[in-house]
Amino acid sequence: MPRISKSASLIPASAIRMLTPFADKAKADGVKVYHLNIGAPDIKSPASALRALADYKFDHLPYSNSAGTLELRMSLVEKYYSKVGIDVCTDDIIVTTAGSEALSFFFHAACDPGDEVLAMEPYYCNYNTLARMNGVSIRAVHTDIRDGFALPSSEEIEKHITPATKAILICNPSNPTGTLYTKAEILAIGDICRRHDLFLVSDEAYREFCYTEEPYFSVMQIPGMENNAILVDSASKRYNLCGARIGCLVSKNKEFMALVMKFAQARLCPPVLGQVAAVGAIGTDDSYFEAVRKEYIARRDFTIDSLNGIPGVYSPKPMGAFYTVAELPVDDAAVFCKWLLTDFRLDGETVMLTPAEPFYSTPMQGRNQVRVAYVLEIPALRRAMHILEKALELFNKVQL
Amino acid sequence: MPRISKSASLIPASAIRMLTPFADKAKADGVKVYHLNIGAPDIKSPASALRALADYKFDHLPYSNSAGTLELRMSLVEKYYSKVGIDVCTDDIIVTTAGSEALSFFFHAACDPGDEVLAMEPYYCNYNTLARMNGVSIRAVHTDIRDGFALPSSEEIEKHITPATKAILICNPSNPTGTLYTKAEILAIGDICRRHDLFLVSDEAYREFCYTEEPYFSVMQIPGMENNAILVDSASKRYNLCGARIGCLVSKNKEFMALVMKFAQARLCPPVLGQVAAVGAIGTDDSYFEAVRKEYIARRDFTIDSLNGIPGVYSPKPMGAFYTVAELPVDDAAVFCKWLLTDFRLDGETVMLTPAEPFYSTPMQGRNQVRVAYVLEIPALRRAMHILEKALELFNKVQL
Repeated sequence: MPRISKSASLIPASAIRMLTPFADKAKADGVKVYHLNIGAPDIKSPASALRALADYKFDHLPYSNSAGTLELRMSLVEKYYSKVGIDVCTDDIIVTTAGSEALSFFFHAACDPGDEVLAMEPYYCNYNTLARMNGVSIRAVHTDIRDGFALPSSEEIEKHITPATKAILICNPSNPTGTLYTKAEILAIGDICRRHDLFLVSDEAYREFCYTEEPYFSVMQIPGMENNAILVDSASKRYNLCGARIGCLVSKNKEFMALVMKFAQARLCPPVLGQVAAVGAIGTDDSYFEAVRKEYIARRDFTIDSLNGIPGVYSPKPMGAFYTVAELPVDDAAVFCKWLLTDFRLDGETVMLTPAEPFYSTPMQGRNQVRVAYVLEIPALRRAMHILEKALELFNKVQL
Repeated sequence: MPRISKSASLIPASAIRMLTPFADKAKADGVKVYHLNIGAPDIKSPASALRALADYKFDHLPYSNSAGTLELRMSLVEKYYSKVGIDVCTDDIIVTTAGSEALSFFFHAACDPGDEVLAMEPYYCNYNTLARMNGVSIRAVHTDIRDGFALPSSEEIEKHITPATKAILICNPSNPTGTLYTKAEILAIGDICRRHDLFLVSDEAYREFCYTEEPYFSVMQIPGMENNAILVDSASKRYNLCGARIGCLVSKNKEFMALVMKFAQARLCPPVLGQVAAVGAIGTDDSYFEAVRKEYIARRDFTIDSLNGIPGVYSPKPMGAFYTVAELPVDDAAVFCKWLLTDFRLDGETVMLTPAEPFYSTPMQGRNQVRVAYVLEIPALRRAMHILEKALELFNKVQL
């Protein structure tokens, strides 16, 4: 029997999807599962996206340019980036199969095996797998739930830089914590990257989901950082088009983008139907985002208040995205999350959460934490929070 | 300025797409370019695929299962694989973002950096880039145009096996040569893999494009090879849905598939709209393939006869796919192919071909060869062959 990959065997399974078989089993048994485990929102896509698809007539479906259709890249430049103050041209954009592929291209075109990339933990756990596919490690700079996952001082961040460090990777606002960095914080991270000749990669998939009055400040807006700044972007959450699998990599570093293009060409092109939907989506007007933001502020307020109202639970108040990381009164949240799916039912219903430990690199960190995605309507969130409270009461009894 | 990846810098650009900027320039100048350079057919997708998309109503587009929708995997099992004699179940299939991602998953889940995979050269050049993304090298077993790129003897193939060899990778029928392996040849390769504990990976993207009377024989049909055989499949060419980006990885090796699933989960899911189109396409009846095959046989016959009618040109007669590799009376086909785009015009028209050298690993092999994709209607092929003949006449004069 042939041997499988040793290095791949060491990669942990996705924290976000590892409990899915237990959820599937529960649902097959007739149990209703409230999915707070995954950032799969129930909010409508822009009508313009659906219209663009309906209007797209073809008799066969050819490849697009490996960098994505010119139409999509022009829409991104003219109808999105120029409006949000990011000054780029179509050559600065390579359309990717969602943000995941943009990240993968970054790890391959910027890094060599053995390199390290700094990220603030807890960080999106799939960064690990995507990095390890090129032998790159994510090195964590710890941030703490009790400080609201605030950005550490530059001095503290710089302690983690070694000769193997190639980049600092941020997710702003953050999946999983919802933390939103201020302009001053982005400038401070930019300054570290400039002084140490590092790439600054910013996953801005959630940039339209900010709940402060201050304008969003992107790494692409830092003056004089053209060769350091890399933007990873995605239509998935912004336009509720997760299944379209459209994202992009944006950078003014021509040497880097030329390498990315080699990988883009090797996989021929990004999905064409998704590109059509994305062109339509980008044409939506601002009222779409305003309505979505209003809805998420209400959901966040409800979720955070409810969580903090449950005995022993603590969550900071996130200022962006649609996630929070909360502390539960349990020893091992992974055991609790699995138990919710396999054992606990309240009137035939249960809740699915994601254990937060895999979002940390530091051993034993985040063991009693979960990521909660507030992606359901408030009545469903209310029911889910009630189920969670009852489940925690029972769990701590049965565990004794 | 941050340093880009050293290893990525060493990867050559895609042979298939590296001339695209020159073609774009020619077209911008008003030149008509006959594209024989890329396997982008002009044949219609099945009407059932278009209907499935038109009937797919959604208000937002969620993720699918990381392994692809159950509907698509069931369609593959029940409406395709069972019909072509491949006995698999839905758990043996992971839907991928086209064949490219299936290959990438193979290189990551079966191989470690430093491993080698054997392929018969000339082979699809993007295998190199996808392999090198995990530090894997393609080691070439030479096949010769003058033998019609026939499979070498088992003895010859086994000479190339080293302790680092992890798999034999075939493309059957072959992109770029159109070579189709017989059942006896597939059994012989299977036997080598069994004796040496190697994976046998078969890229069967072109399996519906076979021009012999014998039934197609897949690696998945070799008895007792359940843990060795891996099928890379794709809807791109089969249903003229290149832009849908839907393929799959099929294997009964559970350990291997569990590792693949980790990578599949890290990128969340394959494109959902493409999956919808693929479900529709798989429902098409056999008359679709029969009409397509008839058309390609006519195109092949015309193309091969025309090529061999041009002084100094030689092409074997391929029995599958829609490519051939032909020898031209030039020293360096890459120079000629570029010159066609930058300098040569016949009544404002020219032809685009792909230099074959990048499809070889052995240095200097294939220098005077090109890959020709006969993906145009016969009147267009006739004009393209005429242009090619005139171009060769002139090129050899201007080169003197």
